Amino acid sequence: MGVALALAERGRGRTAPNPNVGCVIVREGRVVGRGWTQTGGRPHAEAMALAEAGANARGAIAYVTLEPCAHRSPRGPACSDLLSEAGVARVVAALEDPDARTAGEGFARLEAAGIAVTRGIRTAEARRSMAGFLTRQALGRPHVTLKLATSLDGCIAMADGSSRWITGSQARAHAHLERSRHEAILVGRGTYEADAPRLDVRLPGLEERGPMRVLLSSTVQDVPGWTVIATPQDITALPRVDHILVEGGEAVASAFLAADLVDRLLLYRAPILIGGGKTALGDIGLTDLTAAHRRWAIVDARQLGMDRREVYERERNEG
Amino acid sequence: MGVALALAERGRGRTAPNPNVGCVIVREGRVVGRGWTQTGGRPHAEAMALAEAGANARGAIAYVTLEPCAHRSPRGPACSDLLSEAGVARVVAALEDPDARTAGEGFARLEAAGIAVTRGIRTAEARRSMAGFLTRQALGRPHVTLKLATSLDGCIAMADGSSRWITGSQARAHAHLERSRHEAILVGRGTYEADAPRLDVRLPGLEERGPMRVLLSSTVQDVPGWTVIATPQDITALPRVDHILVEGGEAVASAFLAADLVDRLLLYRAPILIGGGKTALGDIGLTDLTAAHRRWAIVDARQLGMDRREVYERERNEG
Ligand SMILES: NC(=O)c1ccc[n+]([C@@H]2O[C@H](COP(=O)([O-])OP(=O)(O)OC[C@H]3O[C@@H](n4cnc5c(N)ncnc54)[C@H](OP(=O)(O)O)[C@@H]3O)[C@@H](O)[C@H]2O)c1
Ligand SMILES: NC(=O)c1ccc[n+]([C@@H]2O[C@H](COP(=O)([O-])OP(=O)(O)OC[C@H]3O[C@@H](n4cnc5c(N)ncnc54)[C@H](OP(=O)(O)O)[C@@H]3O)[C@@H](O)[C@H]2O)c1
Repeated sequence: MGVALALAERGRGRTAPNPNVGCVIVREGRVVGRGWTQTGGRPHAEAMALAEAGANARGAIAYVTLEPCAHRSPRGPACSDLLSEAGVARVVAALEDPDARTAGEGFARLEAAGIAVTRGIRTAEARRSMAGFLTRQALGRPHVTLKLATSLDGCIAMADGSSRWITGSQARAHAHLERSRHEAILVGRGTYEADAPRLDVRLPGLEERGPMRVLLSSTVQDVPGWTVIATPQDITALPRVDHILVEGGEAVASAFLAADLVDRLLLYRAPILIGGGKTALGDIGLTDLTAAHRRWAIVDARQLGMDRREVYERERNEG
Repeated sequence: MGVALALAERGRGRTAPNPNVGCVIVREGRVVGRGWTQTGGRPHAEAMALAEAGANARGAIAYVTLEPCAHRSPRGPACSDLLSEAGVARVVAALEDPDARTAGEGFARLEAAGIAVTRGIRTAEARRSMAGFLTRQALGRPHVTLKLATSLDGCIAMADGSSRWITGSQARAHAHLERSRHEAILVGRGTYEADAPRLDVRLPGLEERGPMRVLLSSTVQDVPGWTVIATPQDITALPRVDHILVEGGEAVASAFLAADLVDRLLLYRAPILIGGGKTALGDIGLTDLTAAHRRWAIVDARQLGMDRREVYERERNEG
């Protein structure tokens, strides 16, 4: 399942409106097929892995990060049918598909065809892996990551606005990698005017994966190469966007937080002190310190050169 | 040596002007004596450990975090003499004593008495352990720790000043423990006026270890129970203070940083966002981002309940 989860990451940020699924087919302890949802959402991971496995799929185990789909579409057959036609002996799945067209029906079809089904393996990681699709299903909007790059004292720039560089080259390269895993990146008019040329994906081999560029502004319209929206809530209507990366600045970050539209915080923190610089956030509508607690849970942390990257997720089931 | 370093910690914050040393005497693989510098600086660690070991010191190995002293004083004999009189076979020391009265002379006396000497074991930890004494020797002032308790976005309070509570109970208890390891704590007049009643050590069993309370103010004098100083540089003259903990607020923290008087940063960071709150620092005299880098090296990090404690040290040998 670990391999299937890693394969699923390859599709992240380019499979909307479909989930980015990963699939591994194992026969007699040997991997005979690997697949992941392709750009645009098809072929599905299972179809790709079965194609690679060929006759080796017979009697094999298929590990898949999401319940195989039960719905035929003009773009392809149902994966649960493909798996039973290929003669797979067992399917191990991380998560049930919340899509009403499948929701348990995929598992039911597999079992009806005599295939053993194991579910609920590494569910939390699979949820994280398909956060875009799941957020779209549950909340009707993309999954929102807010990125902040700060000093130890929480500044995103010096008082005069200079911010090159707070973080080091490894952290900056990593931030570019994050861009490639989102269908869209969003900035405010202030950041657009200050930094427009830099807002692309600049990693060798990933240049072509430029995400949709979205500008938040209530005053500007029609900016060539950009999709302009007038309120944070307008992200809901962005076509084929299940993951959006909010890159700033302060006004935009604060507006998204105030509207409780941030699902994931991506912090890059440099071991420096600036003092009296520009702060990461303005008013986010907090009226009482107690309410600030238990909203953010750390889910990942690692060192990137001198800097530290931390990922927090919004806790949505608090009391 | 690990045990000797741990024992040395017991004296931290109450041995000035003497170093807080730890000593363990081991005979045939068994600990026969343990000692650490006592409050006020005497007895020395070696004297205490030898007293416990008694006749068992003969032929034993003494592990000590600092070179045994070579100077007799009205308050006691030289430790290097005590060790040779006790018949110790070998002395393992972490660090040479920079005090001109000893500086190599302690080792020389031991060797002259036929005792084998091993030096330079776990030097970095020993330096950290005796930072107060070493800073006093090298720079003629106490070792300064600046404590900051912030949100993820670097705020130390909400815009209205409320800061109860940003960090959780474990982090706050730990901050009290830190107080007990400093001979003095310092705040500015702003923090004194806001928080005076809270500025004590409140840990069970440590109530009596109240550090000297120092107030930084250019306007106030004579505050009962407090030592008032008019500039950050006046810490130099505080009697029997080798470790001072600067607890805020923003103006004081910034003044100490601007004067490059901070040796150690003690950060407690809560997983909350405040937004538009009071910042940890004002202007610290930074004119260029490049100059902010390579000043602070992380030396310790750990989780305290929901919060993260990080310790950074000032890099003083940068180019
Ligand atoms: N170090 C870092 O991590 C980092 C990252 C990004 C940016 N920055 C810096 O931050 C600075 C820009 O920050 P900023 O706060 O001035 O600008 P900003 O947040 O990028 O943009 C502000 C503009 O966004 C629009 N906006 C904000 N909230 C809105 C809402 N709720 N509805 C509709 N439109 C909204 C408004 O545009 P209209 O006025 O057109 O309505 C507003 O003027 C730049 O200097 C940039 O370099 C630093
Ligand atoms: N969350 C936290 O970690 C934390 C910690 C501590 C404090 N706080 C909060 O911070 C607030 C206080 O901060 P603040 O910045 O207003 O006050 P402050 O830094 O505590 O005190 C400012 C005063 O200190 C004196 N001072 C500062 N720099 C000096 C210098 N270079 N030489 C001589 N005197 C100097 C001045 O007193 P004179 O005007 O008398 O000269 C100045 O008015 C309080 O609300 C407190 O609760 C939060």
